[in-house]
Amino acid sequence: MDIEKIIFVSPLNKEIKVLLKHYKLKKEFRFLSEDELRNEDLVWADALATFQTKADYDYSKLKWVHSLGAGVDNFTYQKEWSDSVMLTRTITSFGERISEYCLSYILKDLQLHQQFQSQKSIRQWKPVTPKMLKEVRVVVYGTGEIGQTLARALSVFGVKVYGVSLSGKQKEYFHKVLSIARHTEALQEADYVINTLPLTTKTEGMFNEAIFHHLSNTGFINVGRGESVHEKDLLNALECKQVRFAVLDVFQTEPLPEDHPFWQHTDIQLTPHISAVTTAKEAVECFVGTLESLEQNKPLRNKVDGTKGY
Amino acid sequence: MDIEKIIFVSPLNKEIKVLLKHYKLKKEFRFLSEDELRNEDLVWADALATFQTKADYDYSKLKWVHSLGAGVDNFTYQKEWSDSVMLTRTITSFGERISEYCLSYILKDLQLHQQFQSQKSIRQWKPVTPKMLKEVRVVVYGTGEIGQTLARALSVFGVKVYGVSLSGKQKEYFHKVLSIARHTEALQEADYVINTLPLTTKTEGMFNEAIFHHLSNTGFINVGRGESVHEKDLLNALECKQVRFAVLDVFQTEPLPEDHPFWQHTDIQLTPHISAVTTAKEAVECFVGTLESLEQNKPLRNKVDGTKGY
Repeated sequence: MDIEKIIFVSPLNKEIKVLLKHYKLKKEFRFLSEDELRNEDLVWADALATFQTKADYDYSKLKWVHSLGAGVDNFTYQKEWSDSVMLTRTITSFGERISEYCLSYILKDLQLHQQFQSQKSIRQWKPVTPKMLKEVRVVVYGTGEIGQTLARALSVFGVKVYGVSLSGKQKEYFHKVLSIARHTEALQEADYVINTLPLTTKTEGMFNEAIFHHLSNTGFINVGRGESVHEKDLLNALECKQVRFAVLDVFQTEPLPEDHPFWQHTDIQLTPHISAVTTAKEAVECFVGTLESLEQNKPLRNKVDGTKGY
Repeated sequence: MDIEKIIFVSPLNKEIKVLLKHYKLKKEFRFLSEDELRNEDLVWADALATFQTKADYDYSKLKWVHSLGAGVDNFTYQKEWSDSVMLTRTITSFGERISEYCLSYILKDLQLHQQFQSQKSIRQWKPVTPKMLKEVRVVVYGTGEIGQTLARALSVFGVKVYGVSLSGKQKEYFHKVLSIARHTEALQEADYVINTLPLTTKTEGMFNEAIFHHLSNTGFINVGRGESVHEKDLLNALECKQVRFAVLDVFQTEPLPEDHPFWQHTDIQLTPHISAVTTAKEAVECFVGTLESLEQNKPLRNKVDGTKGY
């Protein structure tokens, strides 16, 4: 593929511009904000690197669109993707970042941070033995790059990790991978359930009463997409202790609206979509790597199937 | 070594008694509380398994004393240990337990749990990117069983782990091990300093101004012994931000006295000596394993040098 003219549209543009210079690429660049982008730019360019596409724009003349984020639902979900346009996504340390995020909240729970903090506040010396990671079971939805990195991190400590995927194909670091048709098997004894799935028509609203009613006192962590969780059902599941607590990094609407019930719910911990952040440095590394592979017709590990949406 | 008569003195006796039955050992046992133990028992027995020795008792007629805890300072610190009595200690999942404890507090810090909790309480959506484990340096005092297990757990995530030991002998999983004579080299760039050292005359009061003044904004975790920390110096180091926060599991006096300044210090997190707990099951497994090795004259990995104190 021959790529000469490239547009970057992102809030990281300033840093990306500086970092790109080191690579001395002989390309023409335009660095634009979301507001500055015009259809003329898309006609001019061979390639676009951005976090999302927008309605009213015609991307079909481009040769290549590169998602600066790991997820591509902003490109494909409820949109038609033209087969003639190559779509790739950023793969960097998302798996590691999400692993550390999830591990931090599981360990916070097992090591009883909250209880010991409460005891400290009333000067109470009351030893309680923390449960160990090797004593717990975790079900990870999604066994791709991110899910597998998470499974590896957890299995180092002896966690029994079950995976759930469309195919149910067995993968390293998982004690067992179940297909979506049989996933409830693993839920009854799950101490923690983690969603890492991309947003597709199949995963939309997937975490609803039908899943929650298999749980009992389970910790639920969502680092996938907010739209995969049925929010009312989650609140009900918390109410009746099917879910003991939830850690949510992604939401149906972001930023989370000020009047949303999640803000004041004592059993919900929430973070502002930070579990898998693209840094400018990593974005540039992945972009340049992908560009090189495209130009040399090498296989891509970050190519997206526009129809599947991941 | 021929061991026939064994005394157990511990608050875990009830559970230990039940668990021991499974092994069908042809031995005579006495299970006593601290208060019930008499010198006559020590004359009767070949072996004693306990958490501590006491003044006014004569242990020198025993063949073997087994510490039910990992530390043996309750046996050797400021006491003379008779060379003729074999001293062993419990080695079980202490290393794993302490690793999970330390990792939980490092991840709590890196993943900004406190900041996101505060932001939630005022409904503030403000993304901040957590630092990753591979970006930090940790200095671990003690490179034995526990220190090395901790180094292994941290190095899985790319943490640069420096070790400090008496000898400075290089060990696996440490980026570098420094001798105690050169340890300050690693301190200036340390993000976290962790003490796992046993209490000996050499480690008493070791973490004092002389160490703290090399630090800057460092997290300090003590899972070794309380007596190794000079408490006033630690409070000063927190005051002038050499130490940014401290996580303390062990104290000079336990339970921590109600009027102790640590209780209300906002930059100190404290837990009631729970980072390396001996469970009855693990105590019995280690005891029986050690007994078998002794009877078969096999090498012991949990033998204690009474003079060194570890």
